[in-house]
Amino acid sequence: MTPGLLDGVSSVVNIGVPTFTDSVLSSGASVVDVEWRPPGGGEPRTAWVLARLMGDPDDPACPGSAIDRANREAMAHLLDAQPTLADIRPAREVWPHLGKTILHAGPPISWGQMCGPMQGAVVGAILYEGWAESEAVARQLAASGGVQFEPCHHYGAVGPMAGVISPSMPLFIVRNPAKGNTAYSNLNEGLGKVLRFGAYGPEVVERLRWMERVLAPGLRRAVALVEGGIRLKPIMAQALQMGDEVHNRNVAATSLLFRRLAAALVRSDVDRSAVAEILGFIDGNNHFFLNLSMAACKAGLDAAHGVAGSSLVTAMSRNGVEFGIRISGLGSRWFTAPAPRPKGLYFSGYSEGDANPDLGDSAITETAGLGGFAMGTAPAMVQFVGGTPEDALTYTREMYNITLAKNAAFALPPLNFLGTATGIDVRMVIDTGICPVINTGIAHQEAGIGQVGAGIVRAPMACFEMALLALAESLEIQ
Amino acid sequence: MTPGLLDGVSSVVNIGVPTFTDSVLSSGASVVDVEWRPPGGGEPRTAWVLARLMGDPDDPACPGSAIDRANREAMAHLLDAQPTLADIRPAREVWPHLGKTILHAGPPISWGQMCGPMQGAVVGAILYEGWAESEAVARQLAASGGVQFEPCHHYGAVGPMAGVISPSMPLFIVRNPAKGNTAYSNLNEGLGKVLRFGAYGPEVVERLRWMERVLAPGLRRAVALVEGGIRLKPIMAQALQMGDEVHNRNVAATSLLFRRLAAALVRSDVDRSAVAEILGFIDGNNHFFLNLSMAACKAGLDAAHGVAGSSLVTAMSRNGVEFGIRISGLGSRWFTAPAPRPKGLYFSGYSEGDANPDLGDSAITETAGLGGFAMGTAPAMVQFVGGTPEDALTYTREMYNITLAKNAAFALPPLNFLGTATGIDVRMVIDTGICPVINTGIAHQEAGIGQVGAGIVRAPMACFEMALLALAESLEIQ
Repeated sequence: MTPGLLDGVSSVVNIGVPTFTDSVLSSGASVVDVEWRPPGGGEPRTAWVLARLMGDPDDPACPGSAIDRANREAMAHLLDAQPTLADIRPAREVWPHLGKTILHAGPPISWGQMCGPMQGAVVGAILYEGWAESEAVARQLAASGGVQFEPCHHYGAVGPMAGVISPSMPLFIVRNPAKGNTAYSNLNEGLGKVLRFGAYGPEVVERLRWMERVLAPGLRRAVALVEGGIRLKPIMAQALQMGDEVHNRNVAATSLLFRRLAAALVRSDVDRSAVAEILGFIDGNNHFFLNLSMAACKAGLDAAHGVAGSSLVTAMSRNGVEFGIRISGLGSRWFTAPAPRPKGLYFSGYSEGDANPDLGDSAITETAGLGGFAMGTAPAMVQFVGGTPEDALTYTREMYNITLAKNAAFALPPLNFLGTATGIDVRMVIDTGICPVINTGIAHQEAGIGQVGAGIVRAPMACFEMALLALAESLEIQ
Repeated sequence: MTPGLLDGVSSVVNIGVPTFTDSVLSSGASVVDVEWRPPGGGEPRTAWVLARLMGDPDDPACPGSAIDRANREAMAHLLDAQPTLADIRPAREVWPHLGKTILHAGPPISWGQMCGPMQGAVVGAILYEGWAESEAVARQLAASGGVQFEPCHHYGAVGPMAGVISPSMPLFIVRNPAKGNTAYSNLNEGLGKVLRFGAYGPEVVERLRWMERVLAPGLRRAVALVEGGIRLKPIMAQALQMGDEVHNRNVAATSLLFRRLAAALVRSDVDRSAVAEILGFIDGNNHFFLNLSMAACKAGLDAAHGVAGSSLVTAMSRNGVEFGIRISGLGSRWFTAPAPRPKGLYFSGYSEGDANPDLGDSAITETAGLGGFAMGTAPAMVQFVGGTPEDALTYTREMYNITLAKNAAFALPPLNFLGTATGIDVRMVIDTGICPVINTGIAHQEAGIGQVGAGIVRAPMACFEMALLALAESLEIQ
């Protein structure tokens, strides 16, 4: 440092490079460190593009101002969504031309590239469908092209973890009358050895058959009795007042849903013994609401998708190998990077070495401003990573820096009823260097084992950098 | 002030009397005000008694140290309680010698002294029992001594607001196997025009009859199917993680209870149409759990009652005219003072001028460390008085100054899972000048109208001063 530079200076604000701090302190001055990185991680091309894509109130004709307008339109669709559980039907009735297709979480992936838990879930689905009698034959069928694979997202659907949906599986049908679109999800199986975490033993397949034969038809008849369907947004809003972030914690939302379903089931013509089984099943699984939360978020984000020029992120999803995002203004393209490994709390007997890289469509909740983005209201969640309630608030506060709105429909009591941080803007992620935070379950990396923990993960910056450059290209900014 | 006293003094801490502050400020010095009042409100006799009753680790033989030991015993009973909903039966089956007795909230009171809403509830109970055919005859009967009145507390029972229990009304029977005692409460009628707020119209009486004929027998058969009864402490602990303080907010606890009851009702032999009615009734009333929360608290506090020499408060209750407390070491005596008027939020069309003074046994929840004492976990509650989540935490933090334990079974997420402030020590109330804070409903002061708001109230200091002096007297400290 230039001798005498700090003579007579009593305090200094140091932005960025932390090594300057020591020199300042040794001069006797006090110092406040501000964490800062140049936009785009210091990559000149990214920084140049970002500057061109930022809005300018004094120049409504500039590309950035056009993006701002597109984002306002996209956000209106997201915030206005009224996701409603309208029906429960088998996938093959929803998509009659499905054939021998199996849907999976995340961006597209081939059988050979799939991670262990996703392969396990595919094996389970093939056995469940009766397309093979043994694991070996199922693997052969999957490897030989006898089964097609497609992302759930390409069908307007979402599934947690492996996200496997096969033709006989029942789907939640969630309509959004505000835009007229529909989203889908499979039904939650509970915890322990379950298909979505890659288990495929006889008890897994047997449970799937019970869900098809008893659970789904019963719920279908119950939902049919609820005039106008079951509106999901009020349940989610209430649950956020009750310590759920409706991704990894759903005990309140499940309880509120249970109340609606129980009343309807009892009024329905479903066999009393089936009603008892169904209520027992839902009562035994505090994550039952998760798949509805995901479908509700998907319904809102699909409504916001396809607005030309919008930089709004409309999907974040992982197939266990790659993490992918989609952008409202960039059609069906995925921007992918290697899926990170979550930091988390492991079940007894397991550790980080057992963890599969991040997996599942459930990051759709964070994409819609919930889950990790609403962690401040669910301090029980940060306990997974040894954090405190203050840490939970910090995650939520940080997300306001990369989002376009505070969703008044989803108020967070600990933040004095501020709305959740909603609508990730690719530009803000690049500008701040802050990656979206995601609450997640952790699957064992081998097929057949299942869940080994839960934790927190960050979306990879590389996805957002690629998306920003693609957005510039689509706007013919070279 | 002595001239020159503050010369050269730059800052002053002013304890107590706020009028000194101005003189200090005018001298140019800065001042920090510390709110402080002498123990016992400056009453020399009270302060002298308090000093004799405080424990001294170096003198285990002193009266205060004996009180400390008695309190540890009493607190062990309170903290170890395992309140369990065991049965639902009519009051006359529980107490066969009840005759024409009507139980009411708070300390003893005669018909002539009763407030409007309590008289209204008594009229409703007389009409419901068929002891009179009209309001006029009912009032005559009550005034002429044709009906006996007794506090619920004298029967090990509690009831919210007017707290009226008549012989045909069904009771929750809550057993505490840890001590072998039993507590009781009536069943919650819902909101709007209800008996407990002093309404007694035909729809009120009709609802009470339905509760007797349909609700109670159905719940009884459901509870009988739950092996060992429904344990209430886990529900309350979970509800505290979900934004309930289980006094004025019970949406989570009601939902969790609903799940257990629904599963059992469907498995029972109760008519399907009755099951539908019962579930619809509970689903329509997010306060349904309140009366169970109260009975659970009563079960724990009764277990802690009757320990010789203990200064633990084992009941706080109001009859709408007087506020009364009971002390573990002082038997069945009540220490009473005029009931204060709550500060709160009024329903449209009503204001503080309409409010009855504080009413109901529900302050049993605060006595057990819940309700206002756990407000930090339920920020939605302070909105009743225009407060913020930080205010809610302040109430809870303040209550640690007058309580003997942090109840590890009832952890508060916003306070980093610290246990609720539990077990009011009369000595600590006098020593700190801090009165217990209570969340409460507000009844109209006239009979027949019902609830007009909800808010916050403080227990009157005079009750604690009298109790302290009585405790000294019982220990022969003159």
